[in-house]
Amino acid sequence: MASRLKVYLAGPDVFLPDAVSIGRRKKELCAHYGFEGLYPFDNEISGDHLGTRVDLLIYRANVAKIHEADFGIFNLTPFRGSSADAGTVFELGMFAALAKPVFGYTSDADDLLSRVKQSGSVTRDPMGQWRDWMGMSVENFQNADNLMIEAVFLEQGHPIIRHATAADARFTDLMGFELCLREAAKDLLAHHPPGGMRIAR
Amino acid sequence: MASRLKVYLAGPDVFLPDAVSIGRRKKELCAHYGFEGLYPFDNEISGDHLGTRVDLLIYRANVAKIHEADFGIFNLTPFRGSSADAGTVFELGMFAALAKPVFGYTSDADDLLSRVKQSGSVTRDPMGQWRDWMGMSVENFQNADNLMIEAVFLEQGHPIIRHATAADARFTDLMGFELCLREAAKDLLAHHPPGGMRIAR
Repeated sequence: MASRLKVYLAGPDVFLPDAVSIGRRKKELCAHYGFEGLYPFDNEISGDHLGTRVDLLIYRANVAKIHEADFGIFNLTPFRGSSADAGTVFELGMFAALAKPVFGYTSDADDLLSRVKQSGSVTRDPMGQWRDWMGMSVENFQNADNLMIEAVFLEQGHPIIRHATAADARFTDLMGFELCLREAAKDLLAHHPPGGMRIAR
Repeated sequence: MASRLKVYLAGPDVFLPDAVSIGRRKKELCAHYGFEGLYPFDNEISGDHLGTRVDLLIYRANVAKIHEADFGIFNLTPFRGSSADAGTVFELGMFAALAKPVFGYTSDADDLLSRVKQSGSVTRDPMGQWRDWMGMSVENFQNADNLMIEAVFLEQGHPIIRHATAADARFTDLMGFELCLREAAKDLLAHHPPGGMRIAR
């Protein structure tokens, strides 16, 4: 049997209080679908580093995992603002440049314009362009996030999966993640994915 | 004379009401330092596109410019949240994966932790880890943004330039941009950059 495809598990999950256990759950789900999950390095650093900055060690370890991965699954749930977590988006750009398959999900069902409207005053200028409280234009393509982000997924034939969750499960619900795994199995594996969903609703 | 190095001009500048004129000013500054500026495509689309989605056209045009560019200058001023504009960060990830030189600036002098503290309740947990109002950890590396973003610049030997501006010039002041151009000229050109700063203070 060939070795399993490796999937990089990008997302703000690494900032959760139970980051390590959610990483373990994600890896278990990956194995269920026939993949090997690579979780970012952020929580594995400890001890002495001979003077090298910890942030640079994490960066180098994550970049190495991104190069090692065959594809990526991205948690694009908005994080401290109207867009996805910056570290996650940075990694998505790396995958795009490396031309590796990507799958994405978000716990927010809204498009970008709707979300920005909820965070402040957004009005139309005389040209019909939506503008926020700073006068900056707001895209209105019905995308989940900035067009550069949604477009990567659209170009690969599978738009970002929007799976609304309860507010308190916004960063812990794994249904959107599992839907990505199903898509990945369908696209990347010769055999069909397992029949039932692993996560009980 | 050899053709000039091309620099991709990433940033939320494309969302400004005067996006086109600020693009022109940036290109003029690039020429002054011996470079050719490539401004993102966002504001150049008009007319009929034979059914192709405008967002995908913009994405493809920007990706083509990123591949064409020899290096990039990134406006990382926080945008609608605690981090830089998502489209800009995505493009930074592309440059990192393509191993092209990058230079970055922000109009915000604060580090990420200070900025998150200003936007909501941030407390230390019993382990000493800073946590925001959602319980998500906040990095404390004194970086301008998420570690993945600052690290790209650190690895290349020139950290993100933090140049505080007046509040109303946050997205229009070009001093940080010009400081990046000076660094780029010093690093990438055989001759010295022009003596005086182009932008009058």
